[in-house]
Amino acid sequence: MFLKNYWYVGAYGHEVGRTLLARTIVSEKIVFYRTEDGTPVAMENRCCHRRAPLSRGQLVGDDVECGYHGLTFDPSGACVRVPGQKKIPERARVRTYPVVERWRFIWIWMGDPALADPSLIPDHLYRYNEDPDWTAVTGYLHLKAHYQLLVDNLMDLSHETYLHMKTIGTVHVAETPLTKVERDDDGVTVTRWMLDRPPPPIYDKSGGFSERGETVDRWQIIRFEPPSHCCLDVGVATAGSGAPEGDRSKGISMRSLNALTPETEGSTHYFWTFPRDYKLDDGDTSDLHAKGFHNTFMEDVVMLEAQQEIIELDRGTPTVDINADGSTIPVRRLIQSLLDAEGAAKDPSRAAAE
Amino acid sequence: MFLKNYWYVGAYGHEVGRTLLARTIVSEKIVFYRTEDGTPVAMENRCCHRRAPLSRGQLVGDDVECGYHGLTFDPSGACVRVPGQKKIPERARVRTYPVVERWRFIWIWMGDPALADPSLIPDHLYRYNEDPDWTAVTGYLHLKAHYQLLVDNLMDLSHETYLHMKTIGTVHVAETPLTKVERDDDGVTVTRWMLDRPPPPIYDKSGGFSERGETVDRWQIIRFEPPSHCCLDVGVATAGSGAPEGDRSKGISMRSLNALTPETEGSTHYFWTFPRDYKLDDGDTSDLHAKGFHNTFMEDVVMLEAQQEIIELDRGTPTVDINADGSTIPVRRLIQSLLDAEGAAKDPSRAAAE
Amino acid sequence: MFLKNYWYVGAYGHEVGRTLLARTIVSEKIVFYRTEDGTPVAMENRCCHRRAPLSRGQLVGDDVECGYHGLTFDPSGACVRVPGQKKIPERARVRTYPVVERWRFIWIWMGDPALADPSLIPDHLYRYNEDPDWTAVTGYLHLKAHYQLLVDNLMDLSHETYLHMKTIGTVHVAETPLTKVERDDDGVTVTRWMLDRPPPPIYDKSGGFSERGETVDRWQIIRFEPPSHCCLDVGVATAGSGAPEGDRSKGISMRSLNALTPETEGSTHYFWTFPRDYKLDDGDTSDLHAKGFHNTFMEDVVMLEAQQEIIELDRGTPTVDINADGSTIPVRRLIQSLLDAEGAAKDPSRAAAE
Repeated sequence: MFLKNYWYVGAYGHEVGRTLLARTIVSEKIVFYRTEDGTPVAMENRCCHRRAPLSRGQLVGDDVECGYHGLTFDPSGACVRVPGQKKIPERARVRTYPVVERWRFIWIWMGDPALADPSLIPDHLYRYNEDPDWTAVTGYLHLKAHYQLLVDNLMDLSHETYLHMKTIGTVHVAETPLTKVERDDDGVTVTRWMLDRPPPPIYDKSGGFSERGETVDRWQIIRFEPPSHCCLDVGVATAGSGAPEGDRSKGISMRSLNALTPETEGSTHYFWTFPRDYKLDDGDTSDLHAKGFHNTFMEDVVMLEAQQEIIELDRGTPTVDINADGSTIPVRRLIQSLLDAEGAAKDPSRAAAE
Repeated sequence: MFLKNYWYVGAYGHEVGRTLLARTIVSEKIVFYRTEDGTPVAMENRCCHRRAPLSRGQLVGDDVECGYHGLTFDPSGACVRVPGQKKIPERARVRTYPVVERWRFIWIWMGDPALADPSLIPDHLYRYNEDPDWTAVTGYLHLKAHYQLLVDNLMDLSHETYLHMKTIGTVHVAETPLTKVERDDDGVTVTRWMLDRPPPPIYDKSGGFSERGETVDRWQIIRFEPPSHCCLDVGVATAGSGAPEGDRSKGISMRSLNALTPETEGSTHYFWTFPRDYKLDDGDTSDLHAKGFHNTFMEDVVMLEAQQEIIELDRGTPTVDINADGSTIPVRRLIQSLLDAEGAAKDPSRAAAE
Repeated sequence: MFLKNYWYVGAYGHEVGRTLLARTIVSEKIVFYRTEDGTPVAMENRCCHRRAPLSRGQLVGDDVECGYHGLTFDPSGACVRVPGQKKIPERARVRTYPVVERWRFIWIWMGDPALADPSLIPDHLYRYNEDPDWTAVTGYLHLKAHYQLLVDNLMDLSHETYLHMKTIGTVHVAETPLTKVERDDDGVTVTRWMLDRPPPPIYDKSGGFSERGETVDRWQIIRFEPPSHCCLDVGVATAGSGAPEGDRSKGISMRSLNALTPETEGSTHYFWTFPRDYKLDDGDTSDLHAKGFHNTFMEDVVMLEAQQEIIELDRGTPTVDINADGSTIPVRRLIQSLLDAEGAAKDPSRAAAE
């Protein structure tokens, strides 16, 4: 079960071009491409004639020609040509999906097209990917696990201390209680402040803190918005310089923007970007980040895939919550209530009964 | 569900010898071998004692000795030896299947042995494999798709224009309507004539048409007979020389004989031969055909396996028929009516009710 | 369905140390390790928090720290640390299993811990692994088949003549009827004597029989005890020297001790040892045995995995028993009656009804 009436990240813009890209999203098979003027298109990857995958066909101008018997579909999904006959059968069409290109991504709407309002794209979360005051490194990972395991992972950074011990981990994260957890109409925000600590290596050199003999105040502010966006505002500032109160002038920060798009019930497309607001033009820092975060996230992939494997075999033995789940439980509840609401919307009798 | 009371091609004759060949046919596990005098035998590949595969045993004269505990079965399937005891248990036997060797193939009857009449083997379709006036190249492919997808593929050659664009495709096939589709008591015949066209490359050099400045009349006459034989009579003759009326003296032709034997519900043994009536002793033409048709059929394999994958995930979205399906729908109907008839024959109460 | 209230061999002692060893036993995921003083521990391989596999964590002293969020469990399974909080949730613990190290093995009790009496370990079967009058070679094989297929295999050595024709097979085994089959309260014993025969190669050189122009009396005494121990007492003595009556002074013998631990319904851990009472310090004989028995057992693995594959596809066609099954059927019946008894013990209402 997936939320449908939402914008999902379907691909990076640079992945989609004048060849046909097959990708499964929320268990639906899609083919992506661009028309000659560059407009992205997302189409059902299944010919309505004999169910051949359209991605094995070819582009003819702005249309997709099936590679099996040549039926041709325009960007609206209408069949515009059937070889050997003049009349096009009335029902000959394939589904297309609303798409919008924004913040380096191709966004795709998986639900009712009438509801696909581009203003619902979470610009406030992803605008850093193209903001001139920020520089972003980007990556993609394929995860053989349910996307909610990755949501849990990103909402509860206490795992950094253990899973990422060798990369970004510090003992402080797990030992520091959450500062606050807030749920509002649009999502959940989890905040953790670690005050007056030694600067973590990943920030220290760029920020010059140790060099100046300074400790830091460190923040992790994690925002979840449905269907599955986990966007982190993380950074450090000279201890006592007022960062908790809002003055970040003595600090540096990054965003870790994670768009988790379910592929199937057991796999996830993991699109991650890492914009930073310092050393904007420094290629070495970009390289370091690109490699470092990839390696760190691979540690998550390995653990989450092992966790998924155990969950699939599980016999219903109960699990135990800990304080750190103050950040994951509200998100699980929000997703469940939205799934219920979508189910109710589809089934008015059920909504009435409730 | 498969048709059972039919002769299927189980193997090429050259595949079966004095070693044990394991093969699954219509979801039944079979072991093939030859007795010392060369007679082919097809036996259930499962010892009646502890279900070891007999193909892991060995031939002892004309008999198969199980490789686990040594029970031995003669070519009729009777157990003739149980190590360590004199009395053979009455029920100790394995099933054997009627087999006939003809037209390079070992034919196997998967249904009621009492009905296995060798005169039901479709000699008229396959005799070209051994006719001295013809030379045949042969091949085998394993397809991970239901055999009916391959039947559809061979009955509707309009796909040549798209799927085989780079090998044997020409735009003419898909654009030319079928000349006629005939169903009779024994099968379905689909005919397409393409008159006064440029000679396709595959025939041109051998027939010398372009050299003489000639165009050609081209035919594709496809015969389906159950359970799953698709035999094509294809060729070209000098345009206007009377081929449509039956005079092929100015032409050359090939047969494309396709015996599609279901392995399981999701896989197929594809035995194909290509007899031709010209350049009989020309090794280069044989090589060209063997490689060319293998490559062409591999394009089908790739597409059909992709189609199978989508069908297995399909949620019942309807499909749309086009004119070209005038050749596939009658065959699908014929197979279904024969499956119904076999079901009815097994269940007299049901037959009475209908 | 597996017997639970029994000691199973979980691992060789040498496999378990100060790293975490993941192993599935009777479909339960276990992690093995040793505390600092060398005591073996077997723990559920699933963190009670978010079901991460504990085997991906690390040892901290005698405790296991989960590699995901750092929950830490002591050798009793109690959670002794939750990062970031002082209070340990009451239900935070993982299951541990009684273990005993004996006869080179780590024995694990998969049922009710209150019943885990170490005196139930079958010392009389396995003591040869460490008896100074014996020298043992050891091995492990992973089998993708149900353990009862391997029990059948070891109880009925008539298969040696066929399956092991090229290694240890001799025609005599299958041709010689069982001498006796005895069932008692604790198991089943199958005895086969082959009198006055040429010495089998495996014993001949060590025993010097042919050299002295002697034939031998050969015995195979196979003991089954639940849950799945098949222990063979095999050997030869100079023919007529009184071995059948109990005088083995003119003979040599081996034990083939086979602990078959179910991994899942379709796979088995196969721990085998081969103690002998001759040439105790001869490395060449040990090498010969280690390689020879491995190769022989690999022949079993291949056959049993093929048999398992057929059984999984089987449509209920009946099987036929032969005389040699006098050794396998009583064992199958014993296991079934013990499974029924364990089921009854769990379900008193059912026991009352019977």
